[in-house]
Amino acid sequence: MSLDEAVTIGVDFGTLSGRAVVVSVADGTQLGEAVHEYRHGAVEHLLPGTGERLPPDWALQVPDDWRDVLRLAVPRAVARAGVTVDQVVGIGTDFTACTVLPTTPDGTPLCELPQYEARPHAYPKLWKHHAAQAQADRINALAAERGESWLPRYGGRISSEWEYAKALQLLEEDPELYRAAERWIEAADWIVWELTGAESRNLCTAGYKGIHQPDLLDGSGRPSPGFLGALHPEFGDFTDKVDFPLSPLGSRAGGLSPRAAAWTGLNQGIPVSVGNVDAHVTSAAARALEPGHMLAIMGTSTCHIINSDRLADVPGMCGAVKDGVVPGLWGYEAGQSGVGDIFAWALRTALPEEYAREARERGIGPHQLLTEKAEAQPVGAHGLVALDWHSGNRSVLVDHHLSGLVLGLTLDTRPEEIYRALLEATAFGTRTIVDAFELAGVPVTEFTVAGGLPKNAFLMQIYSDVLRRPVNVIGSEQGGALGSAIHAAVAAGTYPDIHAASAAMGSIHRAVYTPDPDRARVYDLLHAEYRELHDHFGRGGSQAMHRLRALRAQARTTDRAADPTSDRPTDRPTACPEPDGVRA
Amino acid sequence: MSLDEAVTIGVDFGTLSGRAVVVSVADGTQLGEAVHEYRHGAVEHLLPGTGERLPPDWALQVPDDWRDVLRLAVPRAVARAGVTVDQVVGIGTDFTACTVLPTTPDGTPLCELPQYEARPHAYPKLWKHHAAQAQADRINALAAERGESWLPRYGGRISSEWEYAKALQLLEEDPELYRAAERWIEAADWIVWELTGAESRNLCTAGYKGIHQPDLLDGSGRPSPGFLGALHPEFGDFTDKVDFPLSPLGSRAGGLSPRAAAWTGLNQGIPVSVGNVDAHVTSAAARALEPGHMLAIMGTSTCHIINSDRLADVPGMCGAVKDGVVPGLWGYEAGQSGVGDIFAWALRTALPEEYAREARERGIGPHQLLTEKAEAQPVGAHGLVALDWHSGNRSVLVDHHLSGLVLGLTLDTRPEEIYRALLEATAFGTRTIVDAFELAGVPVTEFTVAGGLPKNAFLMQIYSDVLRRPVNVIGSEQGGALGSAIHAAVAAGTYPDIHAASAAMGSIHRAVYTPDPDRARVYDLLHAEYRELHDHFGRGGSQAMHRLRALRAQARTTDRAADPTSDRPTDRPTACPEPDGVRA
Repeated sequence: MSLDEAVTIGVDFGTLSGRAVVVSVADGTQLGEAVHEYRHGAVEHLLPGTGERLPPDWALQVPDDWRDVLRLAVPRAVARAGVTVDQVVGIGTDFTACTVLPTTPDGTPLCELPQYEARPHAYPKLWKHHAAQAQADRINALAAERGESWLPRYGGRISSEWEYAKALQLLEEDPELYRAAERWIEAADWIVWELTGAESRNLCTAGYKGIHQPDLLDGSGRPSPGFLGALHPEFGDFTDKVDFPLSPLGSRAGGLSPRAAAWTGLNQGIPVSVGNVDAHVTSAAARALEPGHMLAIMGTSTCHIINSDRLADVPGMCGAVKDGVVPGLWGYEAGQSGVGDIFAWALRTALPEEYAREARERGIGPHQLLTEKAEAQPVGAHGLVALDWHSGNRSVLVDHHLSGLVLGLTLDTRPEEIYRALLEATAFGTRTIVDAFELAGVPVTEFTVAGGLPKNAFLMQIYSDVLRRPVNVIGSEQGGALGSAIHAAVAAGTYPDIHAASAAMGSIHRAVYTPDPDRARVYDLLHAEYRELHDHFGRGGSQAMHRLRALRAQARTTDRAADPTSDRPTDRPTACPEPDGVRA
Repeated sequence: MSLDEAVTIGVDFGTLSGRAVVVSVADGTQLGEAVHEYRHGAVEHLLPGTGERLPPDWALQVPDDWRDVLRLAVPRAVARAGVTVDQVVGIGTDFTACTVLPTTPDGTPLCELPQYEARPHAYPKLWKHHAAQAQADRINALAAERGESWLPRYGGRISSEWEYAKALQLLEEDPELYRAAERWIEAADWIVWELTGAESRNLCTAGYKGIHQPDLLDGSGRPSPGFLGALHPEFGDFTDKVDFPLSPLGSRAGGLSPRAAAWTGLNQGIPVSVGNVDAHVTSAAARALEPGHMLAIMGTSTCHIINSDRLADVPGMCGAVKDGVVPGLWGYEAGQSGVGDIFAWALRTALPEEYAREARERGIGPHQLLTEKAEAQPVGAHGLVALDWHSGNRSVLVDHHLSGLVLGLTLDTRPEEIYRALLEATAFGTRTIVDAFELAGVPVTEFTVAGGLPKNAFLMQIYSDVLRRPVNVIGSEQGGALGSAIHAAVAAGTYPDIHAASAAMGSIHRAVYTPDPDRARVYDLLHAEYRELHDHFGRGGSQAMHRLRALRAQARTTDRAADPTSDRPTDRPTACPEPDGVRA
């Protein structure tokens, strides 16, 4: 079969649905796609089956929902692509992370065993499960106290979303189940196990979510039994549950098993690439692999991925992992914990009735209406500056107890002006991250955006003006699935490495937005105001946000004690959430 | 006629209407009232008659609208009260201030002369005419430069709303009319002239709006010709236009003229009390005259009036005037430039469609809906603190280029929480003023509220908790008119002085709200956050608000140059506006 006919399949497992895309190996053309929405979605309130009410901040998933994507979306995408199964030379996957589950040694999820199906801890914990904050706090405190060498690789703070915090919560709250969980595995790796029939583990999630740093810790690469045992006597040998040879990204995890072949309708034995994370795999799809090329995957939150040939201590990044995005380079991840969801908050909060009505009458969305009203104004005419910390600040302050701020309000201030100030604030937040990388000796030479937000041209122009850089846009709306298909092509041996496959199959539109010098000059002034507030409230000039957060938690606790039916969450995500369903 | 039968009439001239109330002299019972809405309202866009478009920030009135109140509302109120005209022993008035007009020597408004009716400057300038800011700025700069002794009596800054700034604008923009204006008179005094047929001037407006300080300036009591001449060569003898013996409050200006008797249907010759200001006269109605008793007249903005037996240098007050509220005491005025109008802004900005719908379906107002949603929460549970500076800060910072701020926003933050934070911010603003008086040696021993906002019980409870004081409420919804009727009773000789008349006819409900110690304790914490932000942004820690304001003005100027049809105001009131139509 010629290269022209060969296709790979990329399957992107998101928070609420999975998407399969059939891609031409020759040039990355997307030939067909299908989406399957998980039957159980994100399980945040009631446990399936028993209907047991989950505590606040929990978020689980049901593994068979993921298999349904293989059973339903993959064959549908192949059919829509109009290709034969013989043309399919490989399949790759990417997943939200850290989404992690306990299994038996053969990979059976504990929640699928009848004796455990009523136990909440038997289910996969979705990335946005935020009930392990207490465990994360203790891990961070102890690591700081002991000066653990891996801590700086994670901006000085690991997240409650990650493997160790979630595992420690399992141990402390359901020790019997912890003991039964002989494997503790990222969904990214578990789905590959389902496809190949054999366990494999990828370097990316191990590094970013699993505290794996092979050049540290005397070569063991993972936190020591002494450290872990100090957290809990039974936690000392936790790494046994995750230990496994780690496969480089783009490598072949195995061949498609007979069972998975039956599910998908694909040929048994075709190569399956190792697991990957939705954000990181998008770098290949956007041809954003070379050192210095930053990719911002912008949705409800933003993940920044950038490769470098050197290890630098960049303050406030989420993680630095050798080979973490592409073999041979240091991959950095940074993040803004609130972007699209802040804009959505503005719609919930400051979209008056007459605006909602106008949008309906004109048949446009409220985001578009606010954008139209906002973009008519010259830069600075709203007199506002905002801090984009409504769900804390991931990079570069790594402080999830910060909060949002709007300053400059007058009786004239209109909703679209607040909206615009929030758009701008996220651009200033990105600039802060770019500046931090450059200052730390990791030059940012290109800036590319992916995800759902790039379709907002006004927002993108703000980013270009604020960053004073051209903004490239990924050529595909399905960056994760395309990236997985690219990795599959490498695993299939069609290309020698991810770089070559990305160059052929990836897609980027360069300099779609370029900075306007006049606007950029005024944005510089607004950015200076942002920086002043950023440093004042974020670097200790004022502890007002922390005190208010503590006061809020206390007041709500008192309130909840008085009203036990209330289960309003007391806090927000702490981590670099992977971009999922992009709303804005 | 016995005291039981005697009544007086108080007429309160507001921004959009005038109200006449008939009051029992014995006990202040309100027997009848009538409101007349001015035919021309506040003239802010087109000049009556010619239809000429006014420049931005202008606000005029039409004197005959005021006469209509005498012609229509007074007889109607008398009829509704069921009293005979023989029972009416006096009439008193109060007015918005500084509302000021040019007249001939016989009191004819220049706008009523055919040769001037097409000239905008011939009309009375309403208190909220804000087009004399440039003149006020120059007056303040020169006064500061020369160290004029009267400047500290006005918090270091006179307002663009006041007599001198408005007169200087007249001179500079229409010098011929300035020369024709032989009298420059407060509407408060002009209406008394209309009632009596003879000019009189009251001590209150002369002091608070006319820079009259008889113990200063070598006994001349007014800014010197040298100072005024330095502003403009022709301005040196400006005081000739305002000079007149000043009458103490509560005194008899004259008897009702035949013409005014015909308008009102009242008996010719009955005593007419001297002019007064709506806020200041309310002190008598609220029985809030004794030293240390602060009256807050709360509407779109708040005016604070307090008497003291001593002159103290209270930072950031609007004015300190001997005999300015009641003879024998120093009367202080302070103010918050945004209160009810900030709450109205919150409704315009952050009332989502479903909230508006819920309010409609339940048949309640949006303020009530937000209050209900907000008051269920414990203090501090919103995690927010706001600065109530949407139209600047009058007291104690005297800086109208400050702006509003909301801090502590999260993705959970709901509209009612922002609304509540704004309510609380105005209470913190009041506490700041109370604290400033106490710190300066003017103890605040009682706190009483009047105006439209006191009907919001939740807001009042916040004030009580935040101030840690009982909050008294005036017993009348028509504080201005009742106060004027009280002054009329004094002018009529029924009572020996305002104190006695106020004690008999005024009305106060004491300690309607009392502080809850638990809530007060948490409010103390929030107030500490407010104070930190107040001092940081208001006292020079950060100049962000000023820079953003300047940037906004510049951006809008550029924009207006590009779009000459735009006449969006670039700025907001600077002064202590008198409370007018209370919306909230």
